[in-house]
Amino acid sequence: MKAHKITTASVPMRHVGPIKVIGADLEDELMVPLATYETPLWHSVGRGARVSKLAGGIRATLIDDRMSRSILLEAPDAGVALQAVNGLKARLPELNAVVAESSRFARLIGLNSQIVANLIYLRLEFSTGDASGHNMVTHAADRLFPWILNQYPRLRYVSISGNYCSDKKATAVNGILGRGKYVVTEVLIPRDLCERRLKTTPAKMVELNVKKNLIGTLVAGGLRSANAHYANMLLGFYLATGQDAANIVEGSQGIVHAEVRGDDLYFSATLPNLILGSVGNGKGLDFVEDNLRRLGCKEEREPGDNARRLAIWCAATVLCGELSLLAAQTNPGELMESHLKLER
Amino acid sequence: MKAHKITTASVPMRHVGPIKVIGADLEDELMVPLATYETPLWHSVGRGARVSKLAGGIRATLIDDRMSRSILLEAPDAGVALQAVNGLKARLPELNAVVAESSRFARLIGLNSQIVANLIYLRLEFSTGDASGHNMVTHAADRLFPWILNQYPRLRYVSISGNYCSDKKATAVNGILGRGKYVVTEVLIPRDLCERRLKTTPAKMVELNVKKNLIGTLVAGGLRSANAHYANMLLGFYLATGQDAANIVEGSQGIVHAEVRGDDLYFSATLPNLILGSVGNGKGLDFVEDNLRRLGCKEEREPGDNARRLAIWCAATVLCGELSLLAAQTNPGELMESHLKLER
Amino acid sequence: MKAHKITTASVPMRHVGPIKVIGADLEDELMVPLATYETPLWHSVGRGARVSKLAGGIRATLIDDRMSRSILLEAPDAGVALQAVNGLKARLPELNAVVAESSRFARLIGLNSQIVANLIYLRLEFSTGDASGHNMVTHAADRLFPWILNQYPRLRYVSISGNYCSDKKATAVNGILGRGKYVVTEVLIPRDLCERRLKTTPAKMVELNVKKNLIGTLVAGGLRSANAHYANMLLGFYLATGQDAANIVEGSQGIVHAEVRGDDLYFSATLPNLILGSVGNGKGLDFVEDNLRRLGCKEEREPGDNARRLAIWCAATVLCGELSLLAAQTNPGELMESHLKLER
Amino acid sequence: MKAHKITTASVPMRHVGPIKVIGADLEDELMVPLATYETPLWHSVGRGARVSKLAGGIRATLIDDRMSRSILLEAPDAGVALQAVNGLKARLPELNAVVAESSRFARLIGLNSQIVANLIYLRLEFSTGDASGHNMVTHAADRLFPWILNQYPRLRYVSISGNYCSDKKATAVNGILGRGKYVVTEVLIPRDLCERRLKTTPAKMVELNVKKNLIGTLVAGGLRSANAHYANMLLGFYLATGQDAANIVEGSQGIVHAEVRGDDLYFSATLPNLILGSVGNGKGLDFVEDNLRRLGCKEEREPGDNARRLAIWCAATVLCGELSLLAAQTNPGELMESHLKLER
Repeated sequence: MKAHKITTASVPMRHVGPIKVIGADLEDELMVPLATYETPLWHSVGRGARVSKLAGGIRATLIDDRMSRSILLEAPDAGVALQAVNGLKARLPELNAVVAESSRFARLIGLNSQIVANLIYLRLEFSTGDASGHNMVTHAADRLFPWILNQYPRLRYVSISGNYCSDKKATAVNGILGRGKYVVTEVLIPRDLCERRLKTTPAKMVELNVKKNLIGTLVAGGLRSANAHYANMLLGFYLATGQDAANIVEGSQGIVHAEVRGDDLYFSATLPNLILGSVGNGKGLDFVEDNLRRLGCKEEREPGDNARRLAIWCAATVLCGELSLLAAQTNPGELMESHLKLER
Repeated sequence: MKAHKITTASVPMRHVGPIKVIGADLEDELMVPLATYETPLWHSVGRGARVSKLAGGIRATLIDDRMSRSILLEAPDAGVALQAVNGLKARLPELNAVVAESSRFARLIGLNSQIVANLIYLRLEFSTGDASGHNMVTHAADRLFPWILNQYPRLRYVSISGNYCSDKKATAVNGILGRGKYVVTEVLIPRDLCERRLKTTPAKMVELNVKKNLIGTLVAGGLRSANAHYANMLLGFYLATGQDAANIVEGSQGIVHAEVRGDDLYFSATLPNLILGSVGNGKGLDFVEDNLRRLGCKEEREPGDNARRLAIWCAATVLCGELSLLAAQTNPGELMESHLKLER
Repeated sequence: MKAHKITTASVPMRHVGPIKVIGADLEDELMVPLATYETPLWHSVGRGARVSKLAGGIRATLIDDRMSRSILLEAPDAGVALQAVNGLKARLPELNAVVAESSRFARLIGLNSQIVANLIYLRLEFSTGDASGHNMVTHAADRLFPWILNQYPRLRYVSISGNYCSDKKATAVNGILGRGKYVVTEVLIPRDLCERRLKTTPAKMVELNVKKNLIGTLVAGGLRSANAHYANMLLGFYLATGQDAANIVEGSQGIVHAEVRGDDLYFSATLPNLILGSVGNGKGLDFVEDNLRRLGCKEEREPGDNARRLAIWCAATVLCGELSLLAAQTNPGELMESHLKLER
Repeated sequence: MKAHKITTASVPMRHVGPIKVIGADLEDELMVPLATYETPLWHSVGRGARVSKLAGGIRATLIDDRMSRSILLEAPDAGVALQAVNGLKARLPELNAVVAESSRFARLIGLNSQIVANLIYLRLEFSTGDASGHNMVTHAADRLFPWILNQYPRLRYVSISGNYCSDKKATAVNGILGRGKYVVTEVLIPRDLCERRLKTTPAKMVELNVKKNLIGTLVAGGLRSANAHYANMLLGFYLATGQDAANIVEGSQGIVHAEVRGDDLYFSATLPNLILGSVGNGKGLDFVEDNLRRLGCKEEREPGDNARRLAIWCAATVLCGELSLLAAQTNPGELMESHLKLER
């Protein structure tokens, strides 16, 4: 049947930059690929890249790296639930032995739980090598489930995912307990550069960040989020590098913090939940492999190092986009004007 | 410079279905296109489509349609801020006259505000015809700003966007005040069909929805959200139809509600924030135009009707994906098994 | 049976201040009563009162005033739900005629709704004179329900309260749509006064507010909230004036905003959800009546004016407490030291 | 000065019940004291107590017990912040030695952190014996701060509380990481008892809980909360037992879960954040001591056991109030009718 044929959606892609990154074991300058229908984004990120490079580059710090899956079980009552949870928390090595059967790379590194009534939400946290790990953690959970039910026969299966994971949902748990790569990027921009290239001042940037990103998102009823448009850069980067781009939902929950330091602008983007990998689904495609290679994420390295390197480039890209858009919004009329110019 | 050349990211795309929709002025059966690296999604949505079609089709209701932009102003104090806001609220026709200069299609249909200290977050709500309206509302806001500052000279520009809009962010405001198309889709699935095709029962589906989608998301600290994976279907549909797919962030905040009715399963997906259009950025591409045409969204209709029709197909697609994945998760092992089979 | 006898819980109460307030139709200086087991609060609020008085007083602005109750109905499907909601929104005068039968003071001033699947959450918003209005709105809803079911026979009763009200719960809806009195209080404190009396500087206060109240609450997964301890002042004031103090839950969701203006400190407390009244439950008690009288809230005034005046004193009290505690926290060791001293 | 004299706010108090509790090392029946201006609460809780006693009593399970304080520090950049945090996490015994100097009872049992840009939110978790622990953890943090700054000289003091604690604020962190006593209470109510005493059915109760508490709170933009009026019972119990009642803010964030089991109603109240103690501020007052003694919380026990016992009675009280109010709301008109009757 003709309609079932696999074709492709061809999303416009461009390499922008170069972005200069230092720290987190790397010092490099690279063009980053962004696939998007919103092509003014290229210009915006490009401007941020140029400015941050002139400022000496973006300092990146990788804070954490883990992937989670929460299984959902049921006990006869909360007392039995508590006993089981306490039991499981004391048996991590045994759990890890089961996990090892499911994958060479998956390793259980943490266990969190919520007990609601007689329900158990068990959040299993794994390191997953260079894969983003969606399937790896599901596979591991799938192996663990029968083992758990066997060891704790009073428990019952409810779901392989209890939404306490939390995949592709805006929640607080991912930021608090960790899911994906947690990266902070920072740059110090001299006042002069701010004025010449961003047409703004450090003080104006700080003011806008407080009033728009912090207070504005707060009154909107935002959740663990204070930024202008993380989602745009994440989408472009994720599509270009073969990621499961639906993870921009949690990825977009991050915080821009800016300060005037002396005469200069300290500008940072904190991204607690970057779900991405350098291997796995979506990675076999030629343009994806090419992009990963250009980003230096297909090298022989320790498992996970390529994916973490990728996360750092992604986070640096987000910083560039935030820097540029916020600067534009400090000036009346600039945003629309530049959109109109670029879209012509 | 070679690196700057525009290429494309080729995301695998397939038409799945047919999905049958009734209500909201249409009764039709169509294949829907989904572009995604997570190809098991095709199978999942396809199964949901078949089951819902056998059940008589999906009933769709369009509840609301609007697009917003919040501008951010500053007054000397809260008293002056309040006077200005009250003044503006009484002058909608005048504001609309200014808006009319910016676009043939934009029409101001609502005004909301938040006053924090001496800051004004003014949320302008528009109808935007067949466009999703991002640029249209920014353009309109850009025209309104000088007019407002002229009429209320004690106010000062802070930002063209104050994040109370809220674009591509997980917030509560969009669901409460409305942003994008608000669609409810419903289907009634006989118990027998549930058992044969979904390998589950109405009671199991209801139980899973309460324990996973409602309570599970709640303990995760979720915000106005109770579903299994809206984001996956939205991403696939948005990429295939040339949408600004970063809007899956707010789009993914929606609610699955299920009930046992008699012997049958009542299953519904509520999607309050579908930001999409049938014209605008991303729409010139051949495959996009082709997909929009197949979905019947390039017809001669009243402005907005094509876009609303598109939103309904999108929402129906989401229902199909939820139905199928939730059914799979009621059974131990089924999810992983089917992933492994499909990815081979 | 002895155990059933009504006794009293005697909560320590003290009048602190005087607090000076200007704006919102009043200019006055008053002692405010605070009943609390956490007696260091008296000192803290007292210090804030003295400083703000020396600074010329607190400017108060009343932004809004309404009380809500959301009823919960069910339709056969979303289409019927939408028709009913649209119908009701067009019939406000008729609804108000029914409301008038339930109370002399209740007046329906707004109607909001959420449709989820086939469920209708209908949020009725009232002005309620000088009462906080809990019972008044329930009574009005109780009258409206049979009328609605009679007019829309396809609807069914689910609950007199659907939690979309939202009473005594931390939600986003109250701040966005309004519930209770919405008050902004502001003060401009000269740098010199800041240093002498608060042992801090405007810059330090601004920095702490951003890093603690805004970013700190954000990472905690807070909801529409950025303050240090609104709840403490609200509890003390509510208990002393006979309020339903469980409403401190939503009352505590508010925003402190501070800026350096020239050399001075601009400091403000925004309180969108003060649920309180000068008549009603808890008001017959001698000490309550006495406190209300001292606060000038038992005068002959237009209905609602006494309650709004009370809200302003309450908000000013909150500002004083925030000002003082934040100042203390800018200095290492000061908080604990002063607690230890006061508790001795 | 007359106005400064300490008087008391006399809040009406009554002992209601008896409530029967089993599990968590106790089996007992007691009257519980509730101090409130909303006196219909006594009737509501009393009815719940009678029904749950007839059903065999309330099963209580204590899941967790800890108190937290988050301090806020600043590093020159995120890299230095990460090093310090990793260092501190490896030195818990040393930290505990410092803590031991501040109190006989405080013991550091956990450490969590958030790094935002160059800021460190360090959440210190303690066991605090029979005290709720507000002052104990502040005191401990006060001792730790100079030690930390001495060991990590590149860090700088920002605040003794960074709002990641989170005290008296509606956030997600307390439920996810734990703060206060975490108690689950459960009861199984035969259908017949449901019908006779609560004038409702198990099915109706389950339906209302899903539609009102779960979905209703969700559409309101609620945060980790699904209940009808936890705050009411908490306030009454806290005032009667000398607690810092402003902690009802986070205490009110809890979940009611109900199911039809066979013919019966399984009804549970999960309360993750009960901040209370049997010693400390507010406890010296005669009526408080009397109430604590009647509740069996002034016995010679292991440190913390009296406070945990108190938490269980508090949680059981909350269940009674929820059970009764939800039952009333399943019936049109019943709520208002009973209020009117009781207030006469």
